[in-house]
Amino acid sequence: MPFCALVDWGTSSFRLWLVDPAGQVLSERRSDEGMLSAGPDRFAAILEAHLDTIAAPADLPVVACGMVGARQGWAEAPYVDTPASMAAIAAKALRVPGHARPVYLLPGVAQRQADAPDVMRGEETQLVGLPAGEGTEIVCLPGTHSKWVTLADGRIERFATFITGDLFAAASRHTILRHSVAEPAGPFDPERFRTAFLAGLERPAELANRLFAIRAGALLGLRENGDGGSAVSGLLVGLEFAGARSRLGRIEGMTLVASGPLLEIYRMAAEAAGIAVVSADAEAAARAGLLACAREILP
Amino acid sequence: MPFCALVDWGTSSFRLWLVDPAGQVLSERRSDEGMLSAGPDRFAAILEAHLDTIAAPADLPVVACGMVGARQGWAEAPYVDTPASMAAIAAKALRVPGHARPVYLLPGVAQRQADAPDVMRGEETQLVGLPAGEGTEIVCLPGTHSKWVTLADGRIERFATFITGDLFAAASRHTILRHSVAEPAGPFDPERFRTAFLAGLERPAELANRLFAIRAGALLGLRENGDGGSAVSGLLVGLEFAGARSRLGRIEGMTLVASGPLLEIYRMAAEAAGIAVVSADAEAAARAGLLACAREILP
Repeated sequence: MPFCALVDWGTSSFRLWLVDPAGQVLSERRSDEGMLSAGPDRFAAILEAHLDTIAAPADLPVVACGMVGARQGWAEAPYVDTPASMAAIAAKALRVPGHARPVYLLPGVAQRQADAPDVMRGEETQLVGLPAGEGTEIVCLPGTHSKWVTLADGRIERFATFITGDLFAAASRHTILRHSVAEPAGPFDPERFRTAFLAGLERPAELANRLFAIRAGALLGLRENGDGGSAVSGLLVGLEFAGARSRLGRIEGMTLVASGPLLEIYRMAAEAAGIAVVSADAEAAARAGLLACAREILP
Repeated sequence: MPFCALVDWGTSSFRLWLVDPAGQVLSERRSDEGMLSAGPDRFAAILEAHLDTIAAPADLPVVACGMVGARQGWAEAPYVDTPASMAAIAAKALRVPGHARPVYLLPGVAQRQADAPDVMRGEETQLVGLPAGEGTEIVCLPGTHSKWVTLADGRIERFATFITGDLFAAASRHTILRHSVAEPAGPFDPERFRTAFLAGLERPAELANRLFAIRAGALLGLRENGDGGSAVSGLLVGLEFAGARSRLGRIEGMTLVASGPLLEIYRMAAEAAGIAVVSADAEAAARAGLLACAREILP
C-alpha cells in the first residue's frame, strides 16, 4: 500500500521512490531526464510515464525537490528565506497547477543578504533529511557548486556556495591549464592534491599564480609533464575550505554529504585541514528529507 | 641607413620596426600573424615578406622577442634564469640556424624555484626597455597572464604570473557566470568594479563564493540582472593584487606597463589598493628593450 512517490529531480537526473507509510521503498526509478533534457514542457509526461511503469495509483500524491521547482522548471516554487526549518520548507510546497494528480514541488532556500546573497534548490531537502542533530552543525555538500551550511537545531541558518567544480572544469579545459590537465583525467595523485590543497587553504591569495605555476613547473621540467589535475583540484578545494572558514567561522567538525570520488577527496581535504568528518549519503538524505516533507504536506 | 629590424612576435601579433643607429623608427609593419597563425613553418616567409615590403637590405640583421623563440616557435631560445640582466638576456640570443639573414631570437626568463616556478617570454624585453631605475622597483604587466616583477637596479630578480585574464574569460563563458556576464561586454561599471576589487583584495579566500554571489544576487533581484562583468573582473584583479603582495611583499608604488582599457582598470585598482602608479607604454618598452639588446648583440 503506497503512501506517495518521492522525486529528486535535478538539472541532469531524475530519481523516484515509491514508499509505504513507514518510508520503506516499494520500488524506484532513475533516469537522466533532468530539467535540461525535460525542457519546459515534458515534466508531466516524464513523471507520469515513470509512475505508469511501476503501476502507481492515479491519485497517488508526489512530492518532488530540486530544479523541477525552479523558474525554468515545471512550475516555480519560490524560495523560503533563511533561517529555514523543514516545517517552513514543507509549508511553502507548491502544488503544480493544472495537473490532475497532486504533485508538490518543494521550494529552494534563499539567503537575502546584500554582502552574501545565496540560493540553494535541492540541497535544502538533503539537509532536512540528515539525522537530527542538536546545536550548531556545519554541513558540506561538495560538487559543481559546493554548499557549506550552518545548521542550528536542524534549521538552515546560513550558507555559502562555492563554484569550485565549475571553476575546475572551466580552468582545466579553457585556460592554459588545458595543457596540464589530462582528459580523460589521469590517476588521482593524493600527495600532489594534499600539497596543493594546503597551499590553497593557507595562501588563497596566490591562487591565480599557483595555477600558472602548475604549467610553468612542467615547462621547466621541475615536475613530470603529467596530469596536473590533482594539483588544480587541490588548489581549488583548498580555496573553498579557506572560504568556508572565512564565511562560516571556525570549523572543527562537519557532516560531509557526498559519495564516490568526491567523498574521498573532501575527506582527504578535511583531514589535512584538521576537520573531523562524519559522512552522510546524499541520496539517502534526499529521500529522508522528501519523506519528512511529505509527512508534513500530505493529509 | 637602417641599423636593424626589431620584431616583437607574440602569440597572436607581429610588430616590426626598421630603426636607424640612433633608434629612430624608419618604417614599421604590424599584423596578426602571431605564433598561432604562423604555425611551425611559416616564420621565415612571414618575416621576409614584411622586410621585402619595406625594402630592407638582404643582410640587415633582425632581433626578435616573444613566442617566436619558444619551443613551439621558429627556433627555441632557451630561458635565462633569474636574476636576469639585459646583458645576460642579450648574451643568450639565439641566431636562427639555416636562415641566410642574421635573425636573433631573445630568450625568455625562468624562475627555477620549487615553490614558485615561473616563466616569461616577451615581457623580459619590455622590462629591460623601461626607463632605467635604481634600487628595487615593482613592475606590473597586466593581461591574459599578468606578470608582477621585482627589478633590482634593472635586473629581473623575482616575478609571479597570474592567469587573471585567462580565468576571467573561462569563468565568464564556461561557468554559471555566463548568465551574468554579457557578451559582448556591457559598459564598465567603475563602482561595481571597485567594490568587488576590494573584496577580492581583502578576502581572497571567498573568491569562489563571491563569484557565485554575482549570479545569486541577480536571481534574488538584489541587483539588476545586468552585466556582472565588472564585478567578476574586480574580484579577479583584487585576487591578483592580493597575490602580488603575498608573493612580492609590500608594494607602495609600481610601474604599470599597459595601455587602453587595461591601463585604466589597473590604474583604478592600484588607486583603491593605495599603490602609487607610474605608467609605461608596453609597445615603446618592447621597442626600447629590443634596441638595447640589438646594440649588445650586433657588431
